[in-house]
Amino acid sequence: MAGNSFGTLFRFTTWGESHGPAIGVVVDGVPPRLPLAEPDIQRWLDKRKPGQSRFTTQRQEEDLVKILSGVFDGVTTGTPIQLLIENTDQRPRDYRNIADRFRPGHADYTYWKKYGVRDHRGGGRASARETASRVAAGAIARKILGPGVTIRGALVQIGPHAIDRGAWDWRAVEDNPFWCPDAAMALRWADYLDTTRKAGSSAGAVIEVVASGVPAGLGEPVYDKLDGDLARALMTINAVKGVEIGSGFAAAALKGEDNADEMRVESGKVVFLSNNAGGILGGISTGQDIVARFVVKPTSSILHPMRTVDVEGNEVEISTHGRHDPCVGIRAVPVGEAMVACVLADHLLRHRALTGDV
Amino acid sequence: MAGNSFGTLFRFTTWGESHGPAIGVVVDGVPPRLPLAEPDIQRWLDKRKPGQSRFTTQRQEEDLVKILSGVFDGVTTGTPIQLLIENTDQRPRDYRNIADRFRPGHADYTYWKKYGVRDHRGGGRASARETASRVAAGAIARKILGPGVTIRGALVQIGPHAIDRGAWDWRAVEDNPFWCPDAAMALRWADYLDTTRKAGSSAGAVIEVVASGVPAGLGEPVYDKLDGDLARALMTINAVKGVEIGSGFAAAALKGEDNADEMRVESGKVVFLSNNAGGILGGISTGQDIVARFVVKPTSSILHPMRTVDVEGNEVEISTHGRHDPCVGIRAVPVGEAMVACVLADHLLRHRALTGDV
Amino acid sequence: MAGNSFGTLFRFTTWGESHGPAIGVVVDGVPPRLPLAEPDIQRWLDKRKPGQSRFTTQRQEEDLVKILSGVFDGVTTGTPIQLLIENTDQRPRDYRNIADRFRPGHADYTYWKKYGVRDHRGGGRASARETASRVAAGAIARKILGPGVTIRGALVQIGPHAIDRGAWDWRAVEDNPFWCPDAAMALRWADYLDTTRKAGSSAGAVIEVVASGVPAGLGEPVYDKLDGDLARALMTINAVKGVEIGSGFAAAALKGEDNADEMRVESGKVVFLSNNAGGILGGISTGQDIVARFVVKPTSSILHPMRTVDVEGNEVEISTHGRHDPCVGIRAVPVGEAMVACVLADHLLRHRALTGDV
Amino acid sequence: MAGNSFGTLFRFTTWGESHGPAIGVVVDGVPPRLPLAEPDIQRWLDKRKPGQSRFTTQRQEEDLVKILSGVFDGVTTGTPIQLLIENTDQRPRDYRNIADRFRPGHADYTYWKKYGVRDHRGGGRASARETASRVAAGAIARKILGPGVTIRGALVQIGPHAIDRGAWDWRAVEDNPFWCPDAAMALRWADYLDTTRKAGSSAGAVIEVVASGVPAGLGEPVYDKLDGDLARALMTINAVKGVEIGSGFAAAALKGEDNADEMRVESGKVVFLSNNAGGILGGISTGQDIVARFVVKPTSSILHPMRTVDVEGNEVEISTHGRHDPCVGIRAVPVGEAMVACVLADHLLRHRALTGDV
Repeated sequence: MAGNSFGTLFRFTTWGESHGPAIGVVVDGVPPRLPLAEPDIQRWLDKRKPGQSRFTTQRQEEDLVKILSGVFDGVTTGTPIQLLIENTDQRPRDYRNIADRFRPGHADYTYWKKYGVRDHRGGGRASARETASRVAAGAIARKILGPGVTIRGALVQIGPHAIDRGAWDWRAVEDNPFWCPDAAMALRWADYLDTTRKAGSSAGAVIEVVASGVPAGLGEPVYDKLDGDLARALMTINAVKGVEIGSGFAAAALKGEDNADEMRVESGKVVFLSNNAGGILGGISTGQDIVARFVVKPTSSILHPMRTVDVEGNEVEISTHGRHDPCVGIRAVPVGEAMVACVLADHLLRHRALTGDV
Repeated sequence: MAGNSFGTLFRFTTWGESHGPAIGVVVDGVPPRLPLAEPDIQRWLDKRKPGQSRFTTQRQEEDLVKILSGVFDGVTTGTPIQLLIENTDQRPRDYRNIADRFRPGHADYTYWKKYGVRDHRGGGRASARETASRVAAGAIARKILGPGVTIRGALVQIGPHAIDRGAWDWRAVEDNPFWCPDAAMALRWADYLDTTRKAGSSAGAVIEVVASGVPAGLGEPVYDKLDGDLARALMTINAVKGVEIGSGFAAAALKGEDNADEMRVESGKVVFLSNNAGGILGGISTGQDIVARFVVKPTSSILHPMRTVDVEGNEVEISTHGRHDPCVGIRAVPVGEAMVACVLADHLLRHRALTGDV
Repeated sequence: MAGNSFGTLFRFTTWGESHGPAIGVVVDGVPPRLPLAEPDIQRWLDKRKPGQSRFTTQRQEEDLVKILSGVFDGVTTGTPIQLLIENTDQRPRDYRNIADRFRPGHADYTYWKKYGVRDHRGGGRASARETASRVAAGAIARKILGPGVTIRGALVQIGPHAIDRGAWDWRAVEDNPFWCPDAAMALRWADYLDTTRKAGSSAGAVIEVVASGVPAGLGEPVYDKLDGDLARALMTINAVKGVEIGSGFAAAALKGEDNADEMRVESGKVVFLSNNAGGILGGISTGQDIVARFVVKPTSSILHPMRTVDVEGNEVEISTHGRHDPCVGIRAVPVGEAMVACVLADHLLRHRALTGDV
Repeated sequence: MAGNSFGTLFRFTTWGESHGPAIGVVVDGVPPRLPLAEPDIQRWLDKRKPGQSRFTTQRQEEDLVKILSGVFDGVTTGTPIQLLIENTDQRPRDYRNIADRFRPGHADYTYWKKYGVRDHRGGGRASARETASRVAAGAIARKILGPGVTIRGALVQIGPHAIDRGAWDWRAVEDNPFWCPDAAMALRWADYLDTTRKAGSSAGAVIEVVASGVPAGLGEPVYDKLDGDLARALMTINAVKGVEIGSGFAAAALKGEDNADEMRVESGKVVFLSNNAGGILGGISTGQDIVARFVVKPTSSILHPMRTVDVEGNEVEISTHGRHDPCVGIRAVPVGEAMVACVLADHLLRHRALTGDV
């Protein structure tokens, strides 16, 4: 209830600040006897870690994860799994100049108003560094979901440039530094972001996460609907300002008969003729692909000078140097995948509790 | 944890089906000594109740609320408040023809897959009738927030027709059957919905809720961020497919320097020069207006015949007669307001628990 | 979190005051497709209801339960079940004289200190009348546990008079007004309570609840241990001042070798040679009988005049007239059974969530 | 919900096994701006750590605590505080002989039944080593309660030997290795335990914890009563089999007029003439001392050979060598204090959330 935990049965709690000694997450509610070792988690952390291209922050963090508990003889024991990631490339000095002034678009002002104290070093607890813990938890969630469920994310828009959905190719996603499913657009984004970075500016982005193989029946109406939990899960990622499911905001302009997904029977199984619902009806999964999108605002840490105030109430200007992502949306892709995995794993356990379906 | 409760400290649990004897909500965690009587709640229920114009369902429900507990001598006692609303205009016969076939776009199929049984009468638990309980809970939430906080909703788009934001006038909202802040657009919507209804079709909508007077500091990072909780709160309303805060999805196309809200000092107080953040930074309220938008898909209950399957796996067609809203988004306005009120009241209590600010 | 809910997956919330219009409970997290009708619940309420012998309060309440939601075509639907019990024999006038003075041993003073307002009529929310809701919830819990699990309670001590455990006979329990398993002791208690009642006094009691047929493996270490949850469940019953499991407080005086239950194999199954553990080791059920005991203090509402203070701080005397149980421990027997059932049902669901054992 | 967390607003989650690399606890919901450094926590850990006399285990653990997050510039920041304690004196080899056989009185059998896998090294997660994390959390809870609240524990019985309550002297508690308030009895216990240890046996104990200075009004009826939460908190400590508040089980034999604490006014303040209630009425604190007692069963790890079974279902014998406490009740004293502190801190925050009392 205190704000740093997520999930009900599959439940994790993260801790740690951007420039403290370490960050980490304790994952509780993991079923016993699942094979689990550090590489199973490291693999996903490597996807998120900084410094992999010129389009992300140059902070060098290996993000090496250590399992401190909950695993014995190579399998989970049903007890809490503590994962620890040491911070190795802290440069708190980079943040001295922002200790007393509030960076526009950041949580500096609100943390100061709420808590009366804040760890200003790189945003402290409010830093996107926290999302490494989410990715680690997501790796365990995937183990619970098993190989039948696939969760993949892709970047579908940077700045004003949206992909051509007709050109969608999941294989392309791994071949460019943007997780872009449209190879042609990836090239265009590279140019756009180079220009953006050189201008001391930054760009927003839209990410789409698709979960395939999810059985029908997951979700607990009415307040723990699957889409409600996904919305919360994705909205709590740093810099996210919106979430939509299936046809999302475009549904406003559709007619009822165009939006409702018709159903037929094929080879004895119910099939839907479209997926405007994004795989969720009445808060419960339909068995179709679950499709969620979220928007990440442009990075607020920019060279461009901005007007702000300091802790003593003086009007000042600020430019953020340090090491930053020109488009934080890129590294949000594995984070979004992880959060979707965590929501699904939690609901899988909740569903089998309620119905006995295993 | 079982799905029908919302909130942590201000916490309510709803119950009841569309065509059962009654629906209701038990609200726990209400501070003692708040003046409360039935008219305080009825006032908001009246705003949501059906049959107020030709643009909403013709089901006749007075939605009279009774307080069964938690109030003594005209004030709250700090114990649970049970609110009961009897169903008076049930017509379960209207639903006989849908008992065995799944209405596209509805929760019929997913409830059947999840539970193996469903109360098909008017959607049972999945009916938007449940939202009356939300509105009742929201009325109590407003009491907790006090007169300094104002929460108002408006419809900003129906079908493809969005309002002119430059024409926004809060006074207009009460003067048309759509809660539309743009008087000219309200006229256009009337035509559009008349056409839609006659065609046996339905329309989607976008609602905007604005909370003014919210103090800075509310919200519990990182998983109980104010925007995360708002996203969940609004996404769990029937037929909602997307939620955004502040500039929302439009933020993707903004540059960092255009999106981050600059700050100045006026009359000794910090002011923001814009509100792309929608009043929330790092999951914590800034003191600006909180601005949330959500999209409601077009009503799935339409006369237009649709292809579907029945419980025995046969391919069939279905047309939904009964009494339905051609645009459920209209009645979602007071529901959205209520959910925002509930989130804010909960966070007000959580904030004062953590910090001692009263 | 707000205090009136119990359980995590099988979760209920009670509401209502002793002399308000009704009391009730909403039970969420009930698996679908369980047969359930009002008589299934009424049966247990009848066991608790007042006025069945001269040893309990003469208040006449039929305690008729109505199911308002969550059941369709005779089975549970997986949605919340609201149970309503109307109060029919309210006599708030009986309580006028205590409106302003605090009855020693009651919650009058503490409610007033906490809330600054209190419904004084019969104790309001603090009345043991609330326990009817627990019994109703317990009836549903038993449905979840199924016929393989038997939960029985017995009174084992009234005042200074404890039963002879060697004379324990479960059949005797139904044959006397005390749920006493020792027929001879039941006669002695009748005399003792007649004397107590005539003296305007009251007596304490100890209740034992035994759950048989509980599978091994229930309980979630370390903070949601089965015994921890039982302790909380029983301690929250009105007037309870202590809870023990198995050998309980007597374990202090045992040697390690006498307390630890040895294990052997019989017919291929593990058996324990004793049950000092009360069926729980490390917070997890062993498969043996679960044995819990709790103590109920003597009724605080007595004719005997007591020194107290009033709301204005004056020293006064008080005698409680009204209708009261000379030994509230008697009617606590079905309540204790119900709470044990609720804890076990919750843990059954939690266990199958974690492990997939159905 | 997953079993390893405690508290609602002041909420901690522990992790780690007896012979893994480390144990720890993440404490969430700590108000900001409280001065906190490692010595504030170490002080209480030192009280619990093993090897301080011949009456506790000879395992050598320094139990040095490190703060990894949540503290900046010497004060809490309102973000999660991760506390890490490395295990330095693991001797997993000591446990090889018990890897396959279930120690009577231990959680070996139930963990194996529940999880199908267990970390057998020293009891793994079920080891009392976990209680170090509770003590660490309790140290932070004391900071929240402030200097006005004093929480002290004492051992009041070992084996069959109970203290003389008339001889109670809090100063004596620090002067003997048993936290015994009766100096004469401490000498007797030393003899008794020497004999017990030499016989390869063990002894049970009763601990009393007294909290003074707790304001009236804490506790959330009816399921989160202060005594309910204390019962759960204490019952979840390893080896505890019973909890009582105030007069506890002795209340069964009292008459109503002897048990109910009468009230008078002294110097304008309400005073109680006795404290059978143990400072709690109706689940809410009265302002008197809160008095809780709990019983710890005799250590199950004894040299005395016991009959048991192994994982393959063979009947075997077992003697536990390793390093063990002849009376685990002794080291339970600081653990009981810590749990009481955690319950009170949580309820202090909850109370101020509900009522605004700061």
